[in-house]
Amino acid sequence: MFLGLDVLAPQLSSWRDKALFTPGPLTTSRTVKQAMLRDLGSRDIEFITIVKDIRNRLVALGDGVEEYTSVLMQGSGTFGIESVVSSVIPPDGKLLVLVNGAYGKRLLKIANIHKIPFVELAFPENTNPDPSDLEKNLESDPGITHVAAIHCETTTGIINPIEDYGRIVRKHNRTYIVDAMSSFGAYPIDLKKCEIDFLISSSNKNIEGVPGFSFVLARKAALIAAKGFARTLSLDLFAQWEGLEGDGQFRFTPPIHSILAFRQALIELEQEGGVSARGARYKKNYEATISAMQKMGFKTYLKPEDQGYIITSFYYPDHPNFNFQEFYERLSEKGHVIYPGKLTVADCFRIGHIGRLGLTDVKALMSAVAKTLSEMKIHISEKNEE
Amino acid sequence: MFLGLDVLAPQLSSWRDKALFTPGPLTTSRTVKQAMLRDLGSRDIEFITIVKDIRNRLVALGDGVEEYTSVLMQGSGTFGIESVVSSVIPPDGKLLVLVNGAYGKRLLKIANIHKIPFVELAFPENTNPDPSDLEKNLESDPGITHVAAIHCETTTGIINPIEDYGRIVRKHNRTYIVDAMSSFGAYPIDLKKCEIDFLISSSNKNIEGVPGFSFVLARKAALIAAKGFARTLSLDLFAQWEGLEGDGQFRFTPPIHSILAFRQALIELEQEGGVSARGARYKKNYEATISAMQKMGFKTYLKPEDQGYIITSFYYPDHPNFNFQEFYERLSEKGHVIYPGKLTVADCFRIGHIGRLGLTDVKALMSAVAKTLSEMKIHISEKNEE
Repeated sequence: MFLGLDVLAPQLSSWRDKALFTPGPLTTSRTVKQAMLRDLGSRDIEFITIVKDIRNRLVALGDGVEEYTSVLMQGSGTFGIESVVSSVIPPDGKLLVLVNGAYGKRLLKIANIHKIPFVELAFPENTNPDPSDLEKNLESDPGITHVAAIHCETTTGIINPIEDYGRIVRKHNRTYIVDAMSSFGAYPIDLKKCEIDFLISSSNKNIEGVPGFSFVLARKAALIAAKGFARTLSLDLFAQWEGLEGDGQFRFTPPIHSILAFRQALIELEQEGGVSARGARYKKNYEATISAMQKMGFKTYLKPEDQGYIITSFYYPDHPNFNFQEFYERLSEKGHVIYPGKLTVADCFRIGHIGRLGLTDVKALMSAVAKTLSEMKIHISEKNEE
Repeated sequence: MFLGLDVLAPQLSSWRDKALFTPGPLTTSRTVKQAMLRDLGSRDIEFITIVKDIRNRLVALGDGVEEYTSVLMQGSGTFGIESVVSSVIPPDGKLLVLVNGAYGKRLLKIANIHKIPFVELAFPENTNPDPSDLEKNLESDPGITHVAAIHCETTTGIINPIEDYGRIVRKHNRTYIVDAMSSFGAYPIDLKKCEIDFLISSSNKNIEGVPGFSFVLARKAALIAAKGFARTLSLDLFAQWEGLEGDGQFRFTPPIHSILAFRQALIELEQEGGVSARGARYKKNYEATISAMQKMGFKTYLKPEDQGYIITSFYYPDHPNFNFQEFYERLSEKGHVIYPGKLTVADCFRIGHIGRLGLTDVKALMSAVAKTLSEMKIHISEKNEE
């Protein structure tokens, strides 16, 4: 019934890991993973010091010193999102969500399961939610207490104008939640300028740590105002913060090893030159990918001006031999992992540009794509010229 | 503001890690940690195969093949407990909790925050909840739908008779939840014989993996019956199971590295000789600890017949020079981490017997305790003889 040691052992020891062109988990550096070769007690002063250092570095990455604080929360990014939604909206609150993809929809799902009244402001997946529509809604519905937006909607890779939304939310004196899961660390985000009250991201996105926890950057006053609103024990954001501010400990066993890896990842982000340098590397990956893919005849789902450098959606080529599963597996066998699409309206696959990957990796992927097309006898360019 | 690299670097590279005599996070093997030196995509067939293998092994550890299944859930053990309580109790359900310590109280806290009606059957921390009291309650209150018990109450280290409770719960046709956080993997638990519907434990207890997720062993019929009862999105036990059973994937980014470490830990558990061999090693650690501590004049909080071999609570010695914080720090400086007490009624500290530790480690700790007592000029034995 069990796979014997002999079956998996070669994979565990001698194979080279595939390059992950996905929205996460991502390829991380060797040194980030090596930081996990330790066991530390969760009450140990060394661990507590590391957590404090991480929390300070995160606030500084959001240019948010003084007015802001940060909270680490066990679980994936969705756990972090649910932690915020279920912890900061009062019993009589109402959430407006700007939706143009699956992650906006997920916010609605979370509001729904916690019986939080919500307004969905939905837009097509290739379009930014319109700030003026947000303003109209806030003007006409005084019951709306909170507004949530997605920065990079990973469904497509579109970048939404969170600063424009923030200005409107502040003008109307509501609380502003931003899901910056796949943008934080690669796009500069000035928390104050964007008027953000709560921003959520995770350990294994652009900071290039391993998965295991999410983190929330919070305006202290907004977090303190949310005391007592939590609808769960584990995901209680205020209580988690209170613990970290008090004795510096997690309320419940922390993912020690992921946290050790994350601190190393933050140091490596600093060494690379911070958010702007990291963003520049990802942008180069993105440009090299787009250029090579377009030469091969692939078309992007989004218009260039809406497209971010985190992840790109490509239409399936219009060729009878194309089958995504086969395409994916042939690339995977060659050592490159791409990602399926998540669009409701178009057949697409996705290629990520983030993680510990550079131009050499992108070039290797592009050669593999060309080889795979040839193996599958797909000639998109020629077909397009017909 | 940040600690420079030069401050933390020596600690990160050259220091030997302290031995963790705690209830977790625990000391793990070198090879378990080395299994994390990889990056794998969460949709990769290799990863999906590993998750499936882990799930099968867990069910087998509970002697629960066929009738049972297992679910991995991101976050600490408490996340797993909250996942069960908030996912399996129907809207008109009522939970009875057998309480003799902090972890029983935590179950009540979870029921309370989800507005689940509950009955607390409380007993002193040094006493097993009485099965006949459970029976009386089930007879007199037909509204009780679920019963929860703690196997090893880590507050004290007491082992509660979960099989006796299970027989009564089954007889009265209720659903039975067991928190086996710190016992599973070191005490043999026959899921069927104990009539358990849901058992919860975590990755970094007796399986000796690293922290990052909890797991639930569930009677399939009970789990399927709970469909639609979840009160959160992230901790929805049924949906998580459905995902793992369907395409084999987590619904949300899994803690890949903790899972890789856990699979290695399960292999090493098998190599050690399974649950009985591991339990035997822990029991030896326990016996050596008790014997040496008693020789030094320390007294255990529990009577020997109630005491398990997971963790032991010792009374603070009745000596004016004793100060727990100083005692703890002096041991920590010597490379040994013990644990504070959690009792409401007595001043105790705790020493754990679990994790990748053996008699050599216990002897080293006992020497350090003797040396520390001498440094602090505490002579308990002599004082007791006065």
